[in-house]
Amino acid sequence: MKDKINIGMIGLGGRGVGLLSLAILRMKDVDVVAVCDVYEDRIKKTQDLCKSRRRVVPQGYTDYNELLERKDLDAVIISCSWAKHTEIALKALEMGIPVGSEVGGAYSVDECWSLVNKYEETKTPFMILENCCYGEYELAVLNMVKQGLFGDVVAMDGGYKHDLREEISYGNVNRHYRLNEYLNRNCENYPTHEIGPIAKVLNINYGNRFTSLASVSSKSLGLKEYISNKSKKDDRLNELVGKDFAQGDIVHTTITCENGELVHIVLDTTLPRPYSRGFTCHGTKALYQEDGNFFFFDGNPLHKLKEFDLTRFFNNGKRIVRKYRHPIWKWFKSKGVKGGHGGMDWLVLRAFFEAIKKGDKKMPLDVYDAATWMVITALSDESIKKGGVYVDFPDFTQGKYKDRKQEGEGLFFI
Amino acid sequence: MKDKINIGMIGLGGRGVGLLSLAILRMKDVDVVAVCDVYEDRIKKTQDLCKSRRRVVPQGYTDYNELLERKDLDAVIISCSWAKHTEIALKALEMGIPVGSEVGGAYSVDECWSLVNKYEETKTPFMILENCCYGEYELAVLNMVKQGLFGDVVAMDGGYKHDLREEISYGNVNRHYRLNEYLNRNCENYPTHEIGPIAKVLNINYGNRFTSLASVSSKSLGLKEYISNKSKKDDRLNELVGKDFAQGDIVHTTITCENGELVHIVLDTTLPRPYSRGFTCHGTKALYQEDGNFFFFDGNPLHKLKEFDLTRFFNNGKRIVRKYRHPIWKWFKSKGVKGGHGGMDWLVLRAFFEAIKKGDKKMPLDVYDAATWMVITALSDESIKKGGVYVDFPDFTQGKYKDRKQEGEGLFFI
Repeated sequence: MKDKINIGMIGLGGRGVGLLSLAILRMKDVDVVAVCDVYEDRIKKTQDLCKSRRRVVPQGYTDYNELLERKDLDAVIISCSWAKHTEIALKALEMGIPVGSEVGGAYSVDECWSLVNKYEETKTPFMILENCCYGEYELAVLNMVKQGLFGDVVAMDGGYKHDLREEISYGNVNRHYRLNEYLNRNCENYPTHEIGPIAKVLNINYGNRFTSLASVSSKSLGLKEYISNKSKKDDRLNELVGKDFAQGDIVHTTITCENGELVHIVLDTTLPRPYSRGFTCHGTKALYQEDGNFFFFDGNPLHKLKEFDLTRFFNNGKRIVRKYRHPIWKWFKSKGVKGGHGGMDWLVLRAFFEAIKKGDKKMPLDVYDAATWMVITALSDESIKKGGVYVDFPDFTQGKYKDRKQEGEGLFFI
Repeated sequence: MKDKINIGMIGLGGRGVGLLSLAILRMKDVDVVAVCDVYEDRIKKTQDLCKSRRRVVPQGYTDYNELLERKDLDAVIISCSWAKHTEIALKALEMGIPVGSEVGGAYSVDECWSLVNKYEETKTPFMILENCCYGEYELAVLNMVKQGLFGDVVAMDGGYKHDLREEISYGNVNRHYRLNEYLNRNCENYPTHEIGPIAKVLNINYGNRFTSLASVSSKSLGLKEYISNKSKKDDRLNELVGKDFAQGDIVHTTITCENGELVHIVLDTTLPRPYSRGFTCHGTKALYQEDGNFFFFDGNPLHKLKEFDLTRFFNNGKRIVRKYRHPIWKWFKSKGVKGGHGGMDWLVLRAFFEAIKKGDKKMPLDVYDAATWMVITALSDESIKKGGVYVDFPDFTQGKYKDRKQEGEGLFFI
């Protein structure tokens, strides 16, 4: 067990700096000794941040290959644009440096296989940093499912429902990669925030697996209209005025499971709305639904009421979640919740760092999880191109899912 | 304009008696002069009800053909089991008796064509009594969409999310037809409550049309488990113990539109939950969502908050709906809301009766609406059998949808 570890960070955009500022630089057992970005100003800004927080000032790199030559790294975190995650991860695994990779969708099925194959070849630890797997509600529901309170889980829903029009439209100003994604692709481009927690509840890759997927998209109006309106007062958007975006405003994806459960996820990122992941768990004994934030338990006689009686239940989740808190959140609440995104960022990073410190080979969210969740983007792209047909889901475990068990130990292995 | 009309009612189960008791028997301009059911005890009970309410005591029939021979009927209402709706409607149209038909799904595409063809041949008025088209929130959203407050509507959601396990399981006791439907079919068996209002917002059959549909279902566990538990204390369920139900617990259906909008509906009737129709309208300028009962308007800076900020919006619908009430609901509130299902039953019946009294040929919700909404059941059955493929949506207007306008006049033509 190491007392302290050295890490490198590759990708210093909003996400990379957010992780550093709100979480990593507050962790005394983690030194960020190297950082990398293609933009030098970002490196400088990050070094200044570390200095101002009285932490080790990391060496800066514009080429991740050079960073990965360092011999003092216990792990790297990849937090750059989606398109580069796998390329960088493959190199790091090859170099024997454990990887914690930020989330994103895959561009091809092959990309996911390459990650799995490289892991199996090198056995270098790989973890996908899916923070939402450690969300308070997601973990409470997982806890309740494991205690049998939901009976048999029959179906689950989720979504990434987040108005990103500003971030996307200003992509050329903010150097944000989402702009090109939305201009050129039409798919479920960001599935992992909802599918990670769903996969954990459904024991995907641990006795169950996703078998097929179909996606369908609405037309694309949100970004074009947003840009048309905003450009009237902001010249920086002029180059985008009138451009058509490939990405439909709403994408529905349904995923079938070997054990008969049905998963439904939505991408909803270019229309006005408040944030929701739409996390919903339908069991034979209970329902939880994020939209309304309510639990409903079988036997409640109120189900017979009609006409917006649903509103009676709204927000009972705030009370009920306290009763069924997952051990991770009991611990977290006792220590003081911290870090970005309501504490999830802190937890997923601690899950990674604790495993690295212990020298675990198995990560709490491993390469099979990563490949299974990321591949949804590539499969949805294919399905939409083919008119919404179901496409087969690869089994990245090659049959091992049938009797795989979480091998690691400790609080964070969910 | 007639002062008073005579109607017949065919089907005296829960729905038929509910319509009579809560609405029709309270309407002084409507006499129920004939009723029909295959069960004589139901006829007797209905006659007693009419008597106790000091209304005309209707003549009873066990054969609907005999009822339809009467010469004094201004209209019939069909409120029997789904499977008989079209057969009875065809005969009534043939006899020149205007039909108000309760809702239900179709068993085949041909069934829907037969209804359309018979209408076109006879020109006898036909209306589908889809009460939810007159729901307070559904009409408020329609009103707002017509005023441009939603911008362009890009996608809509809905559902029939209603725990029917008791009704279905006791089908042999209560003589309820749903039992056999759930034992033998797997499809979106009850789409009209949500698709009616959605179709009105999207101008389906009035410049727009549904072009294709795909459905997928989860496994079926809810009813079997419910019956297993209940039968321990109730012998009447013994004959169903251990039986497998064909109907999956959750069915997702996506429908594409000629103008590019995407519709998503859910059937969720055999798991514990409170009632919701999940009515949701996604526009470029606003969102309304029944699950949470909230409106969200573009420009609200709160969208940037994360982590259950959604809860801040829950139930703002109660306030906002008052501001944008549809003219029908302004009138209804001023007169006093009455009738079943929060007033929707009253409104849809008044829509029908007013049109009949005026001698309108065109009904507020017409045979093309009916065929388009009912056919979803048949198409979803086909799609599920074929593994979730998209099946083409028939155009029951045969091209006329392109420039059809609501021809009728008056408050109820929405």
